[in-house]
Amino acid sequence: MTEAIARYREVFEKDLAASPALGQPNGLYEPIEYIMNLGGKRMRPILALMSADLYGAPLEQALPAARAVEIFHNFSLIHDDIMDQAPLRRSKPTVHQKWDLNTGILSGDAMLIYAYQCLEAYEPELFKPMMALFSRTARQVCEGQQYDMDFENQEGTTIPDYLKMIEYKTAVLLGCALQLGAMAAKAPVEEQQALYAFGIYLGMAFQLQDDYLDAFGDPKSFGKQVGGDIIENKKTFLYLKAMELGSSTVQQELRDLYSIRPKNPESKVVRVKKLFKQTGADTQTRAQIVGYTEEAFRQLEYLGKDSPAAEALREFGNWLLKREF
Amino acid sequence: MTEAIARYREVFEKDLAASPALGQPNGLYEPIEYIMNLGGKRMRPILALMSADLYGAPLEQALPAARAVEIFHNFSLIHDDIMDQAPLRRSKPTVHQKWDLNTGILSGDAMLIYAYQCLEAYEPELFKPMMALFSRTARQVCEGQQYDMDFENQEGTTIPDYLKMIEYKTAVLLGCALQLGAMAAKAPVEEQQALYAFGIYLGMAFQLQDDYLDAFGDPKSFGKQVGGDIIENKKTFLYLKAMELGSSTVQQELRDLYSIRPKNPESKVVRVKKLFKQTGADTQTRAQIVGYTEEAFRQLEYLGKDSPAAEALREFGNWLLKREF
Repeated sequence: MTEAIARYREVFEKDLAASPALGQPNGLYEPIEYIMNLGGKRMRPILALMSADLYGAPLEQALPAARAVEIFHNFSLIHDDIMDQAPLRRSKPTVHQKWDLNTGILSGDAMLIYAYQCLEAYEPELFKPMMALFSRTARQVCEGQQYDMDFENQEGTTIPDYLKMIEYKTAVLLGCALQLGAMAAKAPVEEQQALYAFGIYLGMAFQLQDDYLDAFGDPKSFGKQVGGDIIENKKTFLYLKAMELGSSTVQQELRDLYSIRPKNPESKVVRVKKLFKQTGADTQTRAQIVGYTEEAFRQLEYLGKDSPAAEALREFGNWLLKREF
Repeated sequence: MTEAIARYREVFEKDLAASPALGQPNGLYEPIEYIMNLGGKRMRPILALMSADLYGAPLEQALPAARAVEIFHNFSLIHDDIMDQAPLRRSKPTVHQKWDLNTGILSGDAMLIYAYQCLEAYEPELFKPMMALFSRTARQVCEGQQYDMDFENQEGTTIPDYLKMIEYKTAVLLGCALQLGAMAAKAPVEEQQALYAFGIYLGMAFQLQDDYLDAFGDPKSFGKQVGGDIIENKKTFLYLKAMELGSSTVQQELRDLYSIRPKNPESKVVRVKKLFKQTGADTQTRAQIVGYTEEAFRQLEYLGKDSPAAEALREFGNWLLKREF
């Protein structure tokens, strides 16, 4: 993380730490404090702050929007972790694991409402379009999660289906964060939209890279277990691309490999990775990541800004995507 | 239901039926259509419409607010039914029962967001205070549900605790519906507040009556199983009042009765009801219901309105509370 990015992060963390306690009942609000304090990269609030900074607005002006997107993101983590039956989040017990299912559901609900309330800091003329963007995004995130669950139980997911799913599940909230920051700074509408698009492309690149690194990342620098998606039979971009490019024999082999859960999965992982390379799915995935990244940076060029804040946005993109191939 | 109330209901149902389909993914939106079409009294939207009508506003002006509160209410039913592990809602399978847990959680989330989106029909200057009221209310509903769950697992719930719980869990959304209707009609702020208060007192009376009828209602007219709360050891107003008024012997007997779940609960129900009467808890509960009802109608007097809409509000209160003692 560069110094500039670290500074935005610090501003956000300070504001979060200073926000008033949520109060009673404890059973509802303690889990919210818990997950908000588990940390994370704080990508979304950083983006909101950088975006406002691009227009010379005081960062305080974008802080409520930054808080709203981070709280929303963490709400979605609580509910997703229930749906995925995940025991851990950032190496700590998930909310439903530490407390129980009901707490996970209800604290998540309260958190979604609380995210909306953060935007009440803005005057009516700003508040309304911000809320509309926020709600549209929130609905898309739900739709993305539904598509993700649907894909697990159905054959025939196409690459366009998959791309739409990750756009909704991941990318739109980055775009939303950037646009909210620009709105808070009263940026021109076309520039808000360019920043939104920057977030979308960045998010797509980020998610595809996550898919890629899950198979081909360096175990030392990749945060999760390398090969985890293969072990879980997750039909990521790499898998779908290999199915598209592979011969019918390869397709059948992949289908077979993705229908088993061997106790010792190592040889399965090795074989799948070999097929990903053999079909050229690995190269094409990298090409797609590069394509999205370039498209993202093109949006910044369109803005024609030449300021430390613009530089910071470029740095952010590079930082986010720099994990080794 | 009087003719006037039925007319408001019809306007709401028509609007609901005409609202555009929610679209894809089906797995997310079908459960929303399902629960919205299970019916119910539609108390909250009717109140929003009546409130706007009081100011001569076209009902269409209050329809988005009416829809928002009804959608929010049904969202809370989906999530509450999961938390309460309820198999049935309005004699039909609950959403998590008909589909599954994940569907219940995610469709509920989408519904909460959708409720917010309904209010986007209003211009910025109206939108913001409506959203603020809506969010505050939504948070209170969550807090009420948390208090309700907390009370089940703790000793020493007091009557003020209980009243706060039902205010949050039930009454505030009635108040919110009425105030939103008044806001949509641009009623003066003090009158909005009187209508909000009318909703609160009406909601309190309604909930306490529900507690009362659960023990002493006519099995023919009461929709649920009479004695259900006693069988479930639910510490309702009647129980708490009996504990307050009873001798230490009675208190101990009640505590004992509320710690068992006999296979054949009939004699337990009979005994508990006898204790409710012996302590005077039944009379005092009725007195409290009358008190809240009078307080509600006093708010209407304050408004000093003398129109068919004002008459309809009074009729609504009477209709809601007229179930026989």
